[in-house]
Amino acid sequence: VAVVGASDDPSKLGFHVIKSLTFWPYKGRIHPVNPKRASVMGIPAHKDLREVESQIDLAIIVVPNKAVEGVIAACLERHVRSIVLITAGFKESEGKEGALLQERLKGLVADRIPVVGPNTFGMVSYHQRLNASFTPEFSLASPGGAAIISQSGGISHLMGFLAMEQDIGLSYVVGLGNRLTVDFQHMLYHLAADEFTKVAGLYVEGIEEPKMLLKAIKDVSSKIPVVVMKAGKGELADKASLSHTGSLAGNQQNYRFGVLQSGGLVVDDVHSFLDLLKAYETLTPPKGNRVAILSGQAGPGIVALDSCVELGLHVKPFGWKTLSEIEEILPPMAIRSNPVDLGPLWYDEFALLKVVKKVLKDPEIDAVLFLMMFASANLNSIPVLLEGLLDERPQKPIFTCIMAPGQIWKKEIREGEEKGIFCNFPTPERAAKACAGMLLLERRRHRQTKNGRTSWT
Amino acid sequence: VAVVGASDDPSKLGFHVIKSLTFWPYKGRIHPVNPKRASVMGIPAHKDLREVESQIDLAIIVVPNKAVEGVIAACLERHVRSIVLITAGFKESEGKEGALLQERLKGLVADRIPVVGPNTFGMVSYHQRLNASFTPEFSLASPGGAAIISQSGGISHLMGFLAMEQDIGLSYVVGLGNRLTVDFQHMLYHLAADEFTKVAGLYVEGIEEPKMLLKAIKDVSSKIPVVVMKAGKGELADKASLSHTGSLAGNQQNYRFGVLQSGGLVVDDVHSFLDLLKAYETLTPPKGNRVAILSGQAGPGIVALDSCVELGLHVKPFGWKTLSEIEEILPPMAIRSNPVDLGPLWYDEFALLKVVKKVLKDPEIDAVLFLMMFASANLNSIPVLLEGLLDERPQKPIFTCIMAPGQIWKKEIREGEEKGIFCNFPTPERAAKACAGMLLLERRRHRQTKNGRTSWT
Repeated sequence: VAVVGASDDPSKLGFHVIKSLTFWPYKGRIHPVNPKRASVMGIPAHKDLREVESQIDLAIIVVPNKAVEGVIAACLERHVRSIVLITAGFKESEGKEGALLQERLKGLVADRIPVVGPNTFGMVSYHQRLNASFTPEFSLASPGGAAIISQSGGISHLMGFLAMEQDIGLSYVVGLGNRLTVDFQHMLYHLAADEFTKVAGLYVEGIEEPKMLLKAIKDVSSKIPVVVMKAGKGELADKASLSHTGSLAGNQQNYRFGVLQSGGLVVDDVHSFLDLLKAYETLTPPKGNRVAILSGQAGPGIVALDSCVELGLHVKPFGWKTLSEIEEILPPMAIRSNPVDLGPLWYDEFALLKVVKKVLKDPEIDAVLFLMMFASANLNSIPVLLEGLLDERPQKPIFTCIMAPGQIWKKEIREGEEKGIFCNFPTPERAAKACAGMLLLERRRHRQTKNGRTSWT
Repeated sequence: VAVVGASDDPSKLGFHVIKSLTFWPYKGRIHPVNPKRASVMGIPAHKDLREVESQIDLAIIVVPNKAVEGVIAACLERHVRSIVLITAGFKESEGKEGALLQERLKGLVADRIPVVGPNTFGMVSYHQRLNASFTPEFSLASPGGAAIISQSGGISHLMGFLAMEQDIGLSYVVGLGNRLTVDFQHMLYHLAADEFTKVAGLYVEGIEEPKMLLKAIKDVSSKIPVVVMKAGKGELADKASLSHTGSLAGNQQNYRFGVLQSGGLVVDDVHSFLDLLKAYETLTPPKGNRVAILSGQAGPGIVALDSCVELGLHVKPFGWKTLSEIEEILPPMAIRSNPVDLGPLWYDEFALLKVVKKVLKDPEIDAVLFLMMFASANLNSIPVLLEGLLDERPQKPIFTCIMAPGQIWKKEIREGEEKGIFCNFPTPERAAKACAGMLLLERRRHRQTKNGRTSWT
């Protein structure tokens, strides 16, 4: 990896790029390029890209916008395999100069080298442990199966940090910026072929050729689910987006419809976007929309029920077999017919586990919402539940809202998610919404690929 | 405080109640009552409540449901001042027995002692440092101005733990349970007179006399804002709620309308509820709906703009004065007319601060949405911003989405919130929604009390 514009000065992005590259112990060689320095941050530097003798797989460019053309020419000369062009001041800036500069670059590069950017924070490839961005802290997130491809660096950062907080494993975070050559569709084809990526999330503001994106979604949706957040909904947003990424935001309804038709799903906010990525990263989607609500306390069960009803999920009383099995375990104090109030079983974790297992075996249930708020007396409930479910390896997805203060249950939640037993959300509403989102998207994907049938089609 | 049913056995709630009472160094005396033990958890115990010689301010009752009548009789005899009745197995349970038992209790107590419960986790009074519940971990939240009054223990726990995560200062968390004598309206009058409570949040499932609640909201809304989350929206929910708290959930639309008419606001989900409590706990409400969006990166600004437009907040281009001031500070690369893209000012924190101050001074702006994602190079932006605003003490509310990984900026965010400079939310959408929620609720309160005029009426 060559860094053109590498710097020892913390007020330059070139400094932060070197910090990012060295945050993980990068296996390849790093070649800082800086005409004025013999070394940058202790790494021997080159005066010019042409001086680098070995094959350059990736050039990260952070020089001022007017110097970019020269660097790109050198990249072409040296047959650099790929470029991350962080520099801003192109199509997104006021006046015509930036746009002209970008046009010239485009002519120069044509399809000879894939270029991410310009006007991007960079990109992170978690399984390669390559942080080619100006933010070293992206390396703090865990490697996993969710890819975030974004037209905004700010949103990439927001989502990356929220992913850390919510333990969402990432495969890629890529800032496309002004998309000189690499656009959403190119990334989608790449992700569909990637062995680690289980779900692709796109943050879209405005694109010139929506048809290319829609075709790509259609092409890849049988392989990976595609979640789209489309920002820029009004006239004001169009103006802001033009200044941001050099393209109009476009009509929201057209996007929504087009993405749906292509087998993807448009979500409305950052939480819904990340929650759906997390669900796909962790769970196998439900095969139908018949949901059982099992709640350690009645209130959260009622809140989850409200959400399910609103979202079109079916919460029906259990059939006689499951009901009679539950009635054998649960005392007559609680609601037992779905939602189930597990409250009376706080002191008998094994009975609680038994209820969950019985419900998971019910052929008329496709997914389980499990809610449990810590309350001191129920401390053992989650460890026992986890162990029991690890033995059983349930084939149905369990969406949970397991909530406790500080570090309590954190280990169990993480283990349950890592092993794909359940997927945890901070509120009952978000757990229900993730379940409904998966169902909606699966329906779209199945219609698109005409694969199989599910009970709700 | 007397604890009737105190226990050394962790499988009994009486054990957890003593743990809760002693979690904070409680200043008063604790009297465990247990006929079989000379001491409980090292505290000398009494065989009977009647043996306690000093005046009992509060009796916490955790004996089995059939023993409650006898204990209440003893409380009446000893002129106990208040009761928290944790025991379940009353109106919420299947069969008529529990309901009859509750009726008999009601006759016995009449209006002689206020009783919280039965069928409750208890209550926590943060400024008295009294944790009268079965969950010691409630004491981990910070004392502050938000009161949560809930018909569900599970929801109280969920909200209490989320409040800890999101640094929301609490005055009370009270589980009303079956509301033998203390109901929502009684708590509202109490909170309106409480010197610490700035905002009341009610989680309501179903109540017998909604008119009493609506009257109370009307009576107190000039003193404190009232936020209501109404759960239990369908027929299924009615059934679940009946088994939960012994009352029907009732018609959602009627509640919504009634609460609005009375000067309160109904919100739809746990995040909106807590975010609005946090906003009132931290900020003075905006005087009108003219919002400026200042964003460290363009993308989050566009997402915030989308939310504002959807929520009916006005994001209009600045007038010539503010615009020309900003244009003097900001280079021509960025959007400067609202939203403002502060990106180019990452390396000049003082210029960034200057832009924020100029906008706060604009008489045509009522509130500011400030968004900043950490990106290594902008590490100093938030410390400088905080210091500058602490000097200035702006009179307008600033809703922020300041996001960074790990501990970065956490100290500054906490300080800014504690001093009422800004209020932070995890996404731009939630920051915008909290602002809009405050405006809606203020409009209702002003209409109710006919106090003053605001620019949006």
